[in-house]
Amino acid sequence: MRILQSMKIYADNAATTRLSQTALAAMMPCFSETYGNPSSLHSVGQKAAEALYAARAAIAKELNCDAKEIYFTSGGSESDNQALMSGAAWGAKKGKKQIISTAIEHHAVLHTLDKLKKQGFSVTLLPVGEAGLVSAAQVEEAIGPDTCLVSVMTANNEIGTIQPIDEIGAVCKKHGVLFHTDAVQAAGTLPIDVKQSGVDYLSLSAHKFHGPKGTGVLFARKGAMLETLIEGGAQERGKRAGTENLPGIVGMAAALHEACEKREENVAKLLPLRERLIEGLAKIPYSMLNGDRNMRLPGNVNFCFEGVEGESLLLLLDDRGIEASSGSACTSGALDPSHVLLAIGRPHEIAHGSLRLTIAPDITEEEVDYIIASVGEVVAYLRSFSPLWKKTHG
Amino acid sequence: MRILQSMKIYADNAATTRLSQTALAAMMPCFSETYGNPSSLHSVGQKAAEALYAARAAIAKELNCDAKEIYFTSGGSESDNQALMSGAAWGAKKGKKQIISTAIEHHAVLHTLDKLKKQGFSVTLLPVGEAGLVSAAQVEEAIGPDTCLVSVMTANNEIGTIQPIDEIGAVCKKHGVLFHTDAVQAAGTLPIDVKQSGVDYLSLSAHKFHGPKGTGVLFARKGAMLETLIEGGAQERGKRAGTENLPGIVGMAAALHEACEKREENVAKLLPLRERLIEGLAKIPYSMLNGDRNMRLPGNVNFCFEGVEGESLLLLLDDRGIEASSGSACTSGALDPSHVLLAIGRPHEIAHGSLRLTIAPDITEEEVDYIIASVGEVVAYLRSFSPLWKKTHG
Repeated sequence: MRILQSMKIYADNAATTRLSQTALAAMMPCFSETYGNPSSLHSVGQKAAEALYAARAAIAKELNCDAKEIYFTSGGSESDNQALMSGAAWGAKKGKKQIISTAIEHHAVLHTLDKLKKQGFSVTLLPVGEAGLVSAAQVEEAIGPDTCLVSVMTANNEIGTIQPIDEIGAVCKKHGVLFHTDAVQAAGTLPIDVKQSGVDYLSLSAHKFHGPKGTGVLFARKGAMLETLIEGGAQERGKRAGTENLPGIVGMAAALHEACEKREENVAKLLPLRERLIEGLAKIPYSMLNGDRNMRLPGNVNFCFEGVEGESLLLLLDDRGIEASSGSACTSGALDPSHVLLAIGRPHEIAHGSLRLTIAPDITEEEVDYIIASVGEVVAYLRSFSPLWKKTHG
Repeated sequence: MRILQSMKIYADNAATTRLSQTALAAMMPCFSETYGNPSSLHSVGQKAAEALYAARAAIAKELNCDAKEIYFTSGGSESDNQALMSGAAWGAKKGKKQIISTAIEHHAVLHTLDKLKKQGFSVTLLPVGEAGLVSAAQVEEAIGPDTCLVSVMTANNEIGTIQPIDEIGAVCKKHGVLFHTDAVQAAGTLPIDVKQSGVDYLSLSAHKFHGPKGTGVLFARKGAMLETLIEGGAQERGKRAGTENLPGIVGMAAALHEACEKREENVAKLLPLRERLIEGLAKIPYSMLNGDRNMRLPGNVNFCFEGVEGESLLLLLDDRGIEASSGSACTSGALDPSHVLLAIGRPHEIAHGSLRLTIAPDITEEEVDYIIASVGEVVAYLRSFSPLWKKTHG
């Protein structure tokens, strides 16, 4: 097997991103100068409190909400957990115990729903079809008098499909049901406007948009019930205890601002490169694109290759300098195929041969072509070792 | 009122500490080079996984436990919450629903206990007496057949008193009761050895020992029940979801190692300076030291000054470059006096006039003397404005 020219391409931006220089520059003074506890009355504490407030206001501006509707958490998973527990608590108070979600949510949502099931909630997971999409009509049909909460992700972390959040928000509003969206994968490439979408809760994770790891946002609309997941001090208006991670929060605000400011420019760069990548990989025999062709994130490409085992594919691509994923990083290590690929109807053995490439705007055409050629070679190489493949297609 | 020579002294290290240069140096490569998701199979992911493992092993070594007993959290509050919820879940399973703690725990413990009370647990808060100490005998006396969990902090965040953790651990072991300790204030100045103390759960927060904000540790002994607070991905062996905050974790490991390595040297520096500070402040008329004279953290000084309002005292000291606190930073903004000072018997009006100075080993004798002189002047100045003070003592 011929090794192509050496390149180093990070194509796993849905798993995590490299910290932006802007974000890092914003964080540095918080380590050594503005190191105070924002709850302290003295000068260095108050400087920290001012920086915290500025970050809150900056993030609120990007999301089109009030600074008081922003709650800082440790990341997307915590935000998802807190949002769902809160919507459920409101439901319990109102005697409504049905929650509607989709089969392709992140595990932070699905596993929290499992916990809520044990507490007596009923959970309806909407099917997504082969395109990996739900419709507002499906949501409306599933809403009954017992429904308290709908949770539908803005964009999927594996197959990148974009859900009709604004329409779903309108349906939820019409029926007086709370609405949460996990927008972790959307931030930076899709516009986020909580007024327009009418969401009650929205989750963000900084490290998905070139901000630091370990910090996230829960937007909770004023008036929407908010339960406390972590009890203790009076931080975050009593809704999330623990000394605020000021460097992380400040870095997140800088990264979000940068991502939103460059969003259109980045999307314009990404789209033709994503198309080139999809078209190139589609030429590999017995390959299939996962997720809708158009309603997908501008940086997301996800394919299944028949007769190929995903892990081997990743390791051989890594040898060639291409860093990719078979799906969600959060479940890697697990031998089960992706719940998302199963939900869009991929058979088990095909779901095992998946490849997710999530590209950043700095990728070049040359690099895209290198990926296409490398994947083609590696897939052919792996198939040459598969007795089953040779029997059926050889 | 004469303003003394200008100095800048940060004496609020119990609220938070300045990030150490060693910790920052350890973190930097995680932002730009080892930026991968530790769950990813590719090279940059695996490099991150190696750094994560090394940090886990380093922290385990400092605590004298196995790396598999270390769970990374977003900080001390989250660790406290998860430990208590876990001990309670074990209790519920065994049909034991009494939890024993103390009246002077951090709010992360006390408020979680309030939540557990609503779930049907009974909570016994042991009194601490004027010294701010509990004894193992008190704990043993309180333990009954219904007791599942004891939570006693290693050292208090306001008055710095050090509890007899090893003896309490032995009592808990004898009676088959789980034992949690919030060691957030102890790390770096007291030796921590989970084998010796026999604790089942222990909480740490990096930013209290010159590590970064937004990251902490929950030690959970192998075999001790561990409930999940944040559901989602399989990180932390399925017990704490969310992409690991690698820079934070690596910085925490470096900071803990540095703090433990320099512990004896730092304590030797701190003790005579703390004594000098206590002796100097004790000369101010109608002042009283809060917390035991000897069983206290080497950097902690906490006084009440009759006839003085704490907030004014802090602001005037801040004007003179001395950054201090009236107690816990987590509750500042609250008008209620400290629950810790009330628990050691200080009347409301006196508890309001408290001053906590938590010094770091780099403080000089000259700075200590400047603090003593400044506090003396500011206290006298504030008393000159108090009609009540003048009436009773004038």
